[in-house]
Amino acid sequence: MEAASVSASSLIRVAALSGSLRKSSYNRGLIRSDLEGEGSFPPAIEAFRQKILEADSILFASPEYNYSFTAPLKNAIDWASRPPNVWADKAAAIVSAGGDFGGGRSQYHLRQVGVFLDLHFINKPEFFLNAFQPPAKFDSDGNLIDEQAKERLKEVLLSLQAFSLKLHQNQ
Amino acid sequence: MEAASVSASSLIRVAALSGSLRKSSYNRGLIRSDLEGEGSFPPAIEAFRQKILEADSILFASPEYNYSFTAPLKNAIDWASRPPNVWADKAAAIVSAGGDFGGGRSQYHLRQVGVFLDLHFINKPEFFLNAFQPPAKFDSDGNLIDEQAKERLKEVLLSLQAFSLKLHQNQ
Amino acid sequence: MEAASVSASSLIRVAALSGSLRKSSYNRGLIRSDLEGEGSFPPAIEAFRQKILEADSILFASPEYNYSFTAPLKNAIDWASRPPNVWADKAAAIVSAGGDFGGGRSQYHLRQVGVFLDLHFINKPEFFLNAFQPPAKFDSDGNLIDEQAKERLKEVLLSLQAFSLKLHQNQ
Amino acid sequence: MEAASVSASSLIRVAALSGSLRKSSYNRGLIRSDLEGEGSFPPAIEAFRQKILEADSILFASPEYNYSFTAPLKNAIDWASRPPNVWADKAAAIVSAGGDFGGGRSQYHLRQVGVFLDLHFINKPEFFLNAFQPPAKFDSDGNLIDEQAKERLKEVLLSLQAFSLKLHQNQ
Repeated sequence: MEAASVSASSLIRVAALSGSLRKSSYNRGLIRSDLEGEGSFPPAIEAFRQKILEADSILFASPEYNYSFTAPLKNAIDWASRPPNVWADKAAAIVSAGGDFGGGRSQYHLRQVGVFLDLHFINKPEFFLNAFQPPAKFDSDGNLIDEQAKERLKEVLLSLQAFSLKLHQNQ
Repeated sequence: MEAASVSASSLIRVAALSGSLRKSSYNRGLIRSDLEGEGSFPPAIEAFRQKILEADSILFASPEYNYSFTAPLKNAIDWASRPPNVWADKAAAIVSAGGDFGGGRSQYHLRQVGVFLDLHFINKPEFFLNAFQPPAKFDSDGNLIDEQAKERLKEVLLSLQAFSLKLHQNQ
Repeated sequence: MEAASVSASSLIRVAALSGSLRKSSYNRGLIRSDLEGEGSFPPAIEAFRQKILEADSILFASPEYNYSFTAPLKNAIDWASRPPNVWADKAAAIVSAGGDFGGGRSQYHLRQVGVFLDLHFINKPEFFLNAFQPPAKFDSDGNLIDEQAKERLKEVLLSLQAFSLKLHQNQ
Repeated sequence: MEAASVSASSLIRVAALSGSLRKSSYNRGLIRSDLEGEGSFPPAIEAFRQKILEADSILFASPEYNYSFTAPLKNAIDWASRPPNVWADKAAAIVSAGGDFGGGRSQYHLRQVGVFLDLHFINKPEFFLNAFQPPAKFDSDGNLIDEQAKERLKEVLLSLQAFSLKLHQNQ
């Protein structure tokens, strides 16, 4: 699970997670190891948890697989939820791309998970991208090229930023 | 649908809604009438919408019926969502009492509805009351008498108040 | 709530329900009345329950409203679930038309309700119709004119018929 | 992920899966490997898929973790869903043990996944075991000792058997 620190603005730090299944390396570093129970997490997990902890808000890229989120994403979420739960009280948003509902079913399951994690998701705008409807949404390198989608993605980030500031001002 | 204005504190105004089926009068005033389409709502609806509009935050009492919320509650929600949507951007909490999960299944459906309504639900504490496990939770007049439950209910209101203030300070 | 008996074939009887909000008369006959508790249901309810009881399978037309099913549909479901629950052990399917997900969010909530009702929903095909994407799906009288959608609707009915026969043969 | 073949009766073959996080070995054999894309699955996956394929029905033991199913269970489900989807058209049931709702939230997410997998879940009885309420439900070896729970578990298996036979007779 990669957690890239993205500077959406000069004001908030966003951790961006992708639950994609494409890269075979995602899950590997996250499986439970013999180190568990020793009072510490494996180094890859520790680094991931630290990135989440330092972020003000979270951007989930959550593909839909079999009408829910992917196993690697849930795995990353579960690791970072172990005491102390590093997700607690952060602002969050979800974006997804996929067939028919554009990943929508995974988003509502993820929102329910967020209740326990104590994540505060923005309500609007939601971002679902039907990746297979013409015209092409991505170029051959996987870069988003659809202008309308890029604009909406930007609106998601602005909404996340505003919500994060609302939640954490004066703290 | 009754919307009682509750003063949870001197600082925020809470509208409390009950979706209970018990009183036969609940649904009656809310059914669609011939007035619809005239550019105004029936008086009972208008009064209900006004109460929601004036509230800073919403407390839903949401019984579970057939594994979801009740029809009268959804009816009230739908009426108040008609343009202009009076739920928008308010803080909210849900409490429920019932069998097994204490109304829990209705709460997660309601949270999904809240995404569209643009309601911001508190995450914690959640309040589910298994009303049928001994000792008795209510007296014969329907008053909550269980001290532990009363304490948790108070914590819900305090959390709702704090979340509401966070969302709406400096506005 | 209208429950039209549809003869999908010579073999099974389908009750078709629409949860649409459009006709103001839907909800009226279903509201709880003073007759409740007298050991019988109001005549309109009794007739509705009888139609469900006589059907082998159920076809729900479930519009999505505020990210869930409509209040009138839930109201009808709840009435028919009162003891004795007339939904029990029937095969069922859901179709919906709407914006973005074509009513999809209402369908998954309805499926959860079906667990308690003991309805057996077909899994495939699912039918979601994005009613607002060109070309026009309905004519000015509200008749479905999209050939592809009509074909898929037929597949839903055939799947419902096959599932119903499987569940109820030799009974 | 272990898939134990359980002979619930002389008539049907049940594959039983546990999504528990407790044993560190669960996830290891299931992570995506370099073999992927070669037209075959890793041996551990192939063996798991074969067990599912040979079963008439599926019994999921689905713990709730962060208000949904566990990552290892979703991982196993996803592997077995890859073309050809070996879950298709099987009868299934879910049991769970846990805190408050006894794992209930994971079950409803799993049911939604089942729509895409084309699994036919029994509706009744549902099995949620609050493992932490006295008296003790398990002995120190993790064996279920609660007589009432054992009886309900048996009813789940009988219901699963009956539903499986209904779905697959004359095939």
